[in-house]
Amino acid sequence: MSTLGTVFRVTLFGESHGPGVGAVVEGIPAGLKIDLEAMRHELKRRRPGQSKLTTQRKEEDEPEFLAGLMHGVATGAPVTIFIRNTDVDSRPYEATKDLPRPGHADFTAWAKWGGARDHRGGGPFSARTTAPLVAAGSIARQMLGRVRIAAHVVEIAGIGVPHEIPFDLIAGAEGHPTRCADAKTAELMEHAITRARSEGDSVGGIVECRAQGLPAGWGGPGADGLESELARALMAIPATRGVEFGAGFRAARMNPRGCRSWPALPSSRRVRWPASRTP
Amino acid sequence: MSTLGTVFRVTLFGESHGPGVGAVVEGIPAGLKIDLEAMRHELKRRRPGQSKLTTQRKEEDEPEFLAGLMHGVATGAPVTIFIRNTDVDSRPYEATKDLPRPGHADFTAWAKWGGARDHRGGGPFSARTTAPLVAAGSIARQMLGRVRIAAHVVEIAGIGVPHEIPFDLIAGAEGHPTRCADAKTAELMEHAITRARSEGDSVGGIVECRAQGLPAGWGGPGADGLESELARALMAIPATRGVEFGAGFRAARMNPRGCRSWPALPSSRRVRWPASRTP
Amino acid sequence: MSTLGTVFRVTLFGESHGPGVGAVVEGIPAGLKIDLEAMRHELKRRRPGQSKLTTQRKEEDEPEFLAGLMHGVATGAPVTIFIRNTDVDSRPYEATKDLPRPGHADFTAWAKWGGARDHRGGGPFSARTTAPLVAAGSIARQMLGRVRIAAHVVEIAGIGVPHEIPFDLIAGAEGHPTRCADAKTAELMEHAITRARSEGDSVGGIVECRAQGLPAGWGGPGADGLESELARALMAIPATRGVEFGAGFRAARMNPRGCRSWPALPSSRRVRWPASRTP
Amino acid sequence: MSTLGTVFRVTLFGESHGPGVGAVVEGIPAGLKIDLEAMRHELKRRRPGQSKLTTQRKEEDEPEFLAGLMHGVATGAPVTIFIRNTDVDSRPYEATKDLPRPGHADFTAWAKWGGARDHRGGGPFSARTTAPLVAAGSIARQMLGRVRIAAHVVEIAGIGVPHEIPFDLIAGAEGHPTRCADAKTAELMEHAITRARSEGDSVGGIVECRAQGLPAGWGGPGADGLESELARALMAIPATRGVEFGAGFRAARMNPRGCRSWPALPSSRRVRWPASRTP
Repeated sequence: MSTLGTVFRVTLFGESHGPGVGAVVEGIPAGLKIDLEAMRHELKRRRPGQSKLTTQRKEEDEPEFLAGLMHGVATGAPVTIFIRNTDVDSRPYEATKDLPRPGHADFTAWAKWGGARDHRGGGPFSARTTAPLVAAGSIARQMLGRVRIAAHVVEIAGIGVPHEIPFDLIAGAEGHPTRCADAKTAELMEHAITRARSEGDSVGGIVECRAQGLPAGWGGPGADGLESELARALMAIPATRGVEFGAGFRAARMNPRGCRSWPALPSSRRVRWPASRTP
Repeated sequence: MSTLGTVFRVTLFGESHGPGVGAVVEGIPAGLKIDLEAMRHELKRRRPGQSKLTTQRKEEDEPEFLAGLMHGVATGAPVTIFIRNTDVDSRPYEATKDLPRPGHADFTAWAKWGGARDHRGGGPFSARTTAPLVAAGSIARQMLGRVRIAAHVVEIAGIGVPHEIPFDLIAGAEGHPTRCADAKTAELMEHAITRARSEGDSVGGIVECRAQGLPAGWGGPGADGLESELARALMAIPATRGVEFGAGFRAARMNPRGCRSWPALPSSRRVRWPASRTP
Repeated sequence: MSTLGTVFRVTLFGESHGPGVGAVVEGIPAGLKIDLEAMRHELKRRRPGQSKLTTQRKEEDEPEFLAGLMHGVATGAPVTIFIRNTDVDSRPYEATKDLPRPGHADFTAWAKWGGARDHRGGGPFSARTTAPLVAAGSIARQMLGRVRIAAHVVEIAGIGVPHEIPFDLIAGAEGHPTRCADAKTAELMEHAITRARSEGDSVGGIVECRAQGLPAGWGGPGADGLESELARALMAIPATRGVEFGAGFRAARMNPRGCRSWPALPSSRRVRWPASRTP
Repeated sequence: MSTLGTVFRVTLFGESHGPGVGAVVEGIPAGLKIDLEAMRHELKRRRPGQSKLTTQRKEEDEPEFLAGLMHGVATGAPVTIFIRNTDVDSRPYEATKDLPRPGHADFTAWAKWGGARDHRGGGPFSARTTAPLVAAGSIARQMLGRVRIAAHVVEIAGIGVPHEIPFDLIAGAEGHPTRCADAKTAELMEHAITRARSEGDSVGGIVECRAQGLPAGWGGPGADGLESELARALMAIPATRGVEFGAGFRAARMNPRGCRSWPALPSSRRVRWPASRTP
């Protein structure tokens, strides 16, 4: 479907209502014992149907390793992960085969591939394709070692987290079905989601992701920048409408005089520069 | 420096204070007469030092074609464009060689490449590397034919355009030094910039870019999506902090009940779906 | 494992003694009905164990389509083919786990990946990885339409076909177990193979492949040349030691005076040039 | 024109009769002082017009560094090398603009790009494009460190070197205009070349290249194999008709019984396997 990365390289494939979704993952160091429990845990977090707040489709999402492992250990060769579609009922999509859904890639797929496209549940454009991305990401996280990564939902339906949340709280945000680390905001979000659902509607949201311990110096000039690569990957998640880094769009609203109109960045985001260095 | 695209492919190189900046552009159809005047026009728009509002560096930015053209016509082979650095004075950067500037890639470059890095004006991370990107984009625009693309500044220092601007006005926004298509807002922006400059500061902004006549069906699943590729390319522009498409981050604030909290998208952005089609 | 091609792109994965071997094939036009019988036919041709002359491993090599097809028709999305390993007995390889076989990639794999490598039957370096290559090639052949491609064995153990064989005879060379289109030579080859086998040895050979109806103008300058791409792909077939095109190495022996020491190329290989053309 | 490699990546551009030929070289470690004298030496070796035996075009082939160096040291950013065409006289090619030369890419270029192609001296298909390849190779050789690489001509016009030449003699083969390390054979070759030239003809040859000290374990499965990558690169050299590794095509003639019909490989090519190893 598409390939991400150069040295660590992920090629995605699969559709929502075909046999399954998967990824070929290259660049995993030989000898790495894949933490299958961690991968299952991440896949479970991704999986819809876990609470009354999300899509109701239920699947086991058990990763099957088609290549690259021996006794659960990466051999150095490409690792192919396959996740079968098990809870598939394509009949509802027959009625709307020629009726593209707004906000989906249905029309794009029709314009691109015509009647041959897989129209069932969005086919290769389905959000289900994030499952192999999560599986590959789980391996990447193992490879990243001491880099800590955590994400939580900071805004849903206009209801935002009022203050910055410490990293450790974010890392533990899985307790609440909204995945918002602030309990009080999470409750308000839940109400908004429930109300929208009762009205046959859905809501949008914003996810904040933080990485701690990332070594300086990753990426390169131009489109090899870490932010360029991340933006491409993040926009590959269906329904994503935007990506920002650091101050993001708020940079356009910072007051020239000491950023008065915008609170200073919290200390955890400040970077301390070395005063000088003779290489 | 980095490569963008697959069939139309742009490989960037060059630094701010070296001999120059350039691009190898592959995938230009043989026989295309390069519109040099259009390229010069775009390069001139990009060039700093044109008004009292922007950086004061002055360069001619005349594109030199090192390969791929014969009598000004693309031969089918890769076209290499080179833009020499002419107004280069690297001395000011010697004093701060080991003092990374906040908000720049100086520290990243130092962490990555150590003392061998080109520290002069950000080296390969300089905004000057957008010059070959603009030159390549000028060719891309020629290839796009009837697709119209226009951009203008919609927000600077918190001062935003209050209403949507028609495409034709945006396309003509070059009259004002701020490149904002709304005259009244442009004036306020200018004051904010001037004030910030007088205080030894600078301001951020948001650019809106629109394409008209883009055929449906471009891009592919996953990270091959048009938005994924554009996000990667846009984040390659130094200092860019975020990218959004369509409703963007505002999607998270749309009220479930008829989008009350946010005005309906203007008609020009609405897509009319075909009721049905038997391909 | 590795990716071939740009617009039509094949990413290989899998090992000889793991779950199976496969390929992600991108760039298949939406609407192409995959000729499954043709693919099975090609896979059957590749399969060892068909005669007393080749390796004795027996497998069904039934291609399983994990993605990209709907009702047997390409949807436009990546097509993933998986061929399970069924006749796998890895026990014989345990005894020689640390004893690299000459003429194999065993030592290379050990040097590269150490003890984590998949040592069973060569792992990802096994000739079995040609199965997905054949499956992908079968689709490519369908896409090539009127281009006819045929190959036969022209030399084994120093026994060579004494004269050029017409294309149609080559295309029908599958009758003999040696795949040599010349019956008399094939018989001699068979004796040589049988004798070598009886002595616990094996022999080498040369395959000639011809394409008829290939449109002029494919490929590009430098390493984008058709011969460059083909050479890379052909050298990916395990045990291949060389590739030549046209006159090949014999070009070094052609007598300057009318190529006396080497017979003129047969007419079928001569290219008739247009006397002139005003494009 | 084309890109070779993944981590060390070379993108070629340029034509024989345009402004020049060049390469963007990525992956050079920051801090590497480019050995300009070594590069000039290699470029001089490649350059035609040095003896009465080769093409008579004379050019300085002085590499100009457009990017990636500071004070002659690699900064980590892409290094762009440009070699200007100086001894260009395109007039002779006007008469044969529409008359493709046999054995050249003229017809291919015409079929691909029509009248817009650069017909002058083969344009981007000219052997002159090997100049930036040599320049990039000179940097690669520096990066390879203790790996020794040497090549010499082993056959011209059917006149072959009768025995294997020691590595050190090959490395010093530049003394003779034919670049053949065996003095007696070189003399015979020279006569053959001179005779062919006097008859308005040219001759073919075979080059043997050896690498000493190459670490085991480079490359990967399938088309990532070192031989696959090298074959692609070598076939990018215009006029190359074939590539072989190790025993090459002779493997098809080896006698099953102890390789009687072919002398055993010299000891320098034998690889000693470790008897056993517990990683």
